Amino acid sequence: MLVAKHQNTIENAVKANQSRTFYSQYPEHPKAYGDEAHAIGVQSYQQMLNKPFKQLLQTGETGWAGEEVSPYSGEVLGVTYPLFTVKDLIAKATEAGKAWAKVPVEQRAAVLTETLDKIRDHFFDIANATMHTTGQSYMMSFQASGPHANDRALEAIAAGYDEIRRYPGNLLWEKPMGKVSIKLAKSFHAIPKGVGVVIGCSTFPVWNSLPGMYADLITGNPVIVKPHPKAILPIAIAVSSIQQALEKMGYDPHLCQLAPDTSEHMITKELAEDPAVKLIDYTGGSSFGDYIETLKGKTVFTEKAGVNSVIIDSVKDLDAVIQNLAFSVSLYSGQMCTAPQNFFIPEQGINTNAGIVSFNEVVQKFKEAVEALVNNPKMGAGTLGAVQNERTLQRAKEAAQLGGKVILQGQSINNEEYTKARMFTPTIIELSSADNNIYEQELFGPIVLIIKTKDTKHSVQLAKQMAQKHGAITCAAYTTDPAVKEEIRDEMNSVFTPVSFNLTGFIWVNQHAAFSDFHVTGGNPAGNASFTNQEFILKRFVWVGNRELAE
Amino acid sequence: MLVAKHQNTIENAVKANQSRTFYSQYPEHPKAYGDEAHAIGVQSYQQMLNKPFKQLLQTGETGWAGEEVSPYSGEVLGVTYPLFTVKDLIAKATEAGKAWAKVPVEQRAAVLTETLDKIRDHFFDIANATMHTTGQSYMMSFQASGPHANDRALEAIAAGYDEIRRYPGNLLWEKPMGKVSIKLAKSFHAIPKGVGVVIGCSTFPVWNSLPGMYADLITGNPVIVKPHPKAILPIAIAVSSIQQALEKMGYDPHLCQLAPDTSEHMITKELAEDPAVKLIDYTGGSSFGDYIETLKGKTVFTEKAGVNSVIIDSVKDLDAVIQNLAFSVSLYSGQMCTAPQNFFIPEQGINTNAGIVSFNEVVQKFKEAVEALVNNPKMGAGTLGAVQNERTLQRAKEAAQLGGKVILQGQSINNEEYTKARMFTPTIIELSSADNNIYEQELFGPIVLIIKTKDTKHSVQLAKQMAQKHGAITCAAYTTDPAVKEEIRDEMNSVFTPVSFNLTGFIWVNQHAAFSDFHVTGGNPAGNASFTNQEFILKRFVWVGNRELAE
Repeated sequence: MLVAKHQNTIENAVKANQSRTFYSQYPEHPKAYGDEAHAIGVQSYQQMLNKPFKQLLQTGETGWAGEEVSPYSGEVLGVTYPLFTVKDLIAKATEAGKAWAKVPVEQRAAVLTETLDKIRDHFFDIANATMHTTGQSYMMSFQASGPHANDRALEAIAAGYDEIRRYPGNLLWEKPMGKVSIKLAKSFHAIPKGVGVVIGCSTFPVWNSLPGMYADLITGNPVIVKPHPKAILPIAIAVSSIQQALEKMGYDPHLCQLAPDTSEHMITKELAEDPAVKLIDYTGGSSFGDYIETLKGKTVFTEKAGVNSVIIDSVKDLDAVIQNLAFSVSLYSGQMCTAPQNFFIPEQGINTNAGIVSFNEVVQKFKEAVEALVNNPKMGAGTLGAVQNERTLQRAKEAAQLGGKVILQGQSINNEEYTKARMFTPTIIELSSADNNIYEQELFGPIVLIIKTKDTKHSVQLAKQMAQKHGAITCAAYTTDPAVKEEIRDEMNSVFTPVSFNLTGFIWVNQHAAFSDFHVTGGNPAGNASFTNQEFILKRFVWVGNRELAE
Repeated sequence: MLVAKHQNTIENAVKANQSRTFYSQYPEHPKAYGDEAHAIGVQSYQQMLNKPFKQLLQTGETGWAGEEVSPYSGEVLGVTYPLFTVKDLIAKATEAGKAWAKVPVEQRAAVLTETLDKIRDHFFDIANATMHTTGQSYMMSFQASGPHANDRALEAIAAGYDEIRRYPGNLLWEKPMGKVSIKLAKSFHAIPKGVGVVIGCSTFPVWNSLPGMYADLITGNPVIVKPHPKAILPIAIAVSSIQQALEKMGYDPHLCQLAPDTSEHMITKELAEDPAVKLIDYTGGSSFGDYIETLKGKTVFTEKAGVNSVIIDSVKDLDAVIQNLAFSVSLYSGQMCTAPQNFFIPEQGINTNAGIVSFNEVVQKFKEAVEALVNNPKMGAGTLGAVQNERTLQRAKEAAQLGGKVILQGQSINNEEYTKARMFTPTIIELSSADNNIYEQELFGPIVLIIKTKDTKHSVQLAKQMAQKHGAITCAAYTTDPAVKEEIRDEMNSVFTPVSFNLTGFIWVNQHAAFSDFHVTGGNPAGNASFTNQEFILKRFVWVGNRELAE
């Protein structure tokens, strides 16, 4: 019955994964969820504040803790979460995994899709929780932690469903041997690797966690979700929804456990190093990610830091390009892993439909566009969101001391709704190509570097070097010359970096669409995994084939 | 034209990979290749002896060397091979790879299938070369290095062809946004990872190398083949056939280079550690394999050592079972990675259709069956083949000193055709379950251990432990009880070990059929890769998606 209920959704998602054309199961516009949804979400979020989070179906906690602070209000959320020992988490995951491993993938896919529908019922509380932990704007919080995350989860379910159904479960193998034949009854089993751990980050606590969680689950593995201690609430709501749905359907809620911890006493290493843990999904800084990648006997999926480039060669309409890029660098104050940081512009300027525009003029236009956007009373605050943590704010404040020529000094601005919001507008710094000690760093947050190059070939060379040495998740390029386009594509693709060409209007390099765009290629230092290619699924189980003489 | 020529073969192979039913492109019976083939093969092999191997299309050698000795005649082959510097090999591979990466996969598949057909023309010289380097019998040499290896190569070609065609190359993505829509032209590219190195072994120099070579090539990577210095000739003939076919079709023969070295001066580490090398396929001992697996920035595919178990619980016809197992342990003197080593038999004996047979009686019957087989003038020598190297012979000779009770002492036997052949029959040793220090070792060669257990549950527990700790490629199990069968399957599969149940007659646990049986699961210490699951292909390239605003 459950299988029949979700069959269409799953089959459509499988087709979408294959065709890579536009597809979305969960509408990204809040209005699609009814007029009441927003208000109910706000209320239900507020009711969670200043009390223990008791919606999880996990017991045996050793204490309660919580330390989240809203980047908007500056106030502590006051939500506390149950703390568990690693031993307890692993034991319960292992136990829950035994039965789950034997559930046919068609049933697993239906059960998991049902859990996504239960998460959907909480999109609006999750949106509020995301806003007040990550500093994202309300709209981004809603979309990224709600429909976009659910779409990415469904993408993983569909990919797993497809992959595990690749081979027939049972078949007769018959080898002709002259007058007789040898017959073997063969069966193929996708054996889950073991306990999975998903380590979340503070900026996209749901979006970056759901794909790994659902990839573990669809392939038959139990999963333990270790959120960032500063951004627990959004994923806690998601996990509790999953647990409640699982229990209602008669499955062990410990298939998906939350493992909150505190900055004072992090359990991440203990969890990751436990021998029972075979799968780790990680989103976060490179140094911890590099450590995760060295763990023996684990299959790991990482998304770490990168340095994203913009290559400007030639454009039709410079203003449209500049508008698009000003939005890209301002969106969530440069705290997206897809945000551009390094702009490579040739010293002789840019070819446009209106003739050559000098380097200085391009820079000036860009500065003005960013200023206009962030100071626009209707657009500014909503585009920037708030800065998630003090360290990022500090980095942004000190950006002018990095070196180079400060084109635009970022500043605190006022948010009418949240007067205490931690906000800072982008700083733009002009550098020479010799300043690689500066632009080789990932400067997470609202900091943009413009590097003057000899020509586009030089720009490409530098952007390629950055991607190869430091990783890149995106590259935006602007050119009207087909030969240049091919060169940029080939060179950046050769270091496993995707290129978005000539984006203007309401589409930005920061955005990766589920079912179509791979998020992170897995081929450069920005991460070893990709949402959701087949490797993201295949590495979570092992094909084992058994044979028996058939008579 | 070439694409049309091989289209059927490739499509059939794709279907076979999917259905896992019996399929073979290259007949395994020598007679299928004509009456003359054998004699021509012998002659052409003999003409290669005692001279430099000049069939390769590689230049710039720094010297010539060769050290192969026939395990049959004890004589040096006298073939010398050109030696190249690692720098030279890498430079030529990199250069050849550039154009190859841009060849569409349909064309690559056809070109590579054409090279397999050229290898087929040399099956019989390769068979002789395999026999006189590995010690395999002539029939095994022919089948393993000829049709079976080619089938495995075609399997890899088909898997790559299928995988790279998974997504449309170009598509229009259109996102509805109310009255308007956003349109992006997207393209997906499978970008090859870089230079591949395939490190061969001395026992299956072709069979274990071809899959990695063709997996590298179909996914657009150039490959360098580093054979074992004691078993170069078989793969040298294959590589030269590939090179000649490539050149004839207008492709750079350096796409597939041979990198011979000597025991005195091995270049394996230098090759493997070169930063340009991104892919490594390795077959051989565990300690070097473990080193290969730790190399940073490489994607590695290993087949290392394991300890294969036989679990005997209950049987219908004990004699048929014993015959089958006696052949399994004798075949190529236990030098197959799939050969059983540890026999777990309960102390209370075995249920059979003729009643319970005691432990001692089972052991006695097994001893007699092995003795009868190896001393059978028509069967013995051909089944055993020769022992590839002195170290294996020494290990076999000293097996009695391992401990336990010697049931059958192996001995040198006479080969009528090759009086100097390095031959040794299996030694059978009985152990108690407490002798784990003995049976936890991989005792490569003609050594069989029979371990007396408390009951089948105990047998399963020990076989599982062995697979988990030391790796296993196969497990043979005999039971007439469905519940026991399920338990054995579940327990062994949980440590990623496939089980072959109740094999009797002309099918043995040692055999893995291309297009149907995965060879090595990749899930236990016996190796991290599998011929040929999708991971074996997918990890060799990276999906990169580009986007452009469509107007």
